[in-house]
Amino acid sequence: MSDLEIRPATAEDIPAIVAMLADDALGAQRESPDDLTPYTAAFQRLAQDPNQHLVVAARGGRTVGTMQLTVIPGLSRMGAIRSIIEAVRIHSDERGSGLGTEMITWAVEESRRQGCALVQLTSDATRTDAHRFYERFGFEASHLGFKMGL
Amino acid sequence: MSDLEIRPATAEDIPAIVAMLADDALGAQRESPDDLTPYTAAFQRLAQDPNQHLVVAARGGRTVGTMQLTVIPGLSRMGAIRSIIEAVRIHSDERGSGLGTEMITWAVEESRRQGCALVQLTSDATRTDAHRFYERFGFEASHLGFKMGL
Repeated sequence: MSDLEIRPATAEDIPAIVAMLADDALGAQRESPDDLTPYTAAFQRLAQDPNQHLVVAARGGRTVGTMQLTVIPGLSRMGAIRSIIEAVRIHSDERGSGLGTEMITWAVEESRRQGCALVQLTSDATRTDAHRFYERFGFEASHLGFKMGL
Repeated sequence: MSDLEIRPATAEDIPAIVAMLADDALGAQRESPDDLTPYTAAFQRLAQDPNQHLVVAARGGRTVGTMQLTVIPGLSRMGAIRSIIEAVRIHSDERGSGLGTEMITWAVEESRRQGCALVQLTSDATRTDAHRFYERFGFEASHLGFKMGL
């Protein structure tokens, strides 16, 4: 289990990433793994944005996790840069393997490298296992996360 | 009250923005309105990023509100673009004037113009008035917001 690599996603990773997004109680309702066209277009836009870091975790050549880290400059908190972690997914074969910890550790370290003073994320209120995981990691559930579809 | 303008912030707006960030129960503890150096540096970085929209609301030439809208592409939800609203502040003279509604309406309309399928924000768990405001607006408090200082 020592050959884990966390690296920037390439276009070749799109099918594996989408499969992981869809293999999820919430994701199953909102992804289209049979048509990758919208994902390919979105990937191009991500790849051109230096503040976006879409990564995959690979083990023995297999893609086993994905995550998106966004670096957001801002004026508040004395001009603090913050990062936002989105779209964390772990392959079902790897759940409980410690991969989540390795991925979030990577995200925190990368956020420090990018000069961030704060790292934040939102987690669906129904994902209580994920909440415990983030709290154990040192995150504080200090905020409510509001969303609105357009 | 009809001469409200919501427009991109300029460097000249920095002192007024920082004063609003600091004039807040939470912000008072973490801003430095007497030293604008870190804010000026942060403003330059924001100004160079086409996915960042730092705006001010001005009425009769006075800066009365500020808000940051970030456009975030992504693979999840079929390649949905989302926007994140951060650092919403209303001048104390304007609270209750409906300015918050006008600003969030602008943010939602701008998010649509940018092709976003989703607009989201986090609000400190202690800001219960803000929560009611966002829920009335149509946002759903579907998530927990986790933060960790680095």
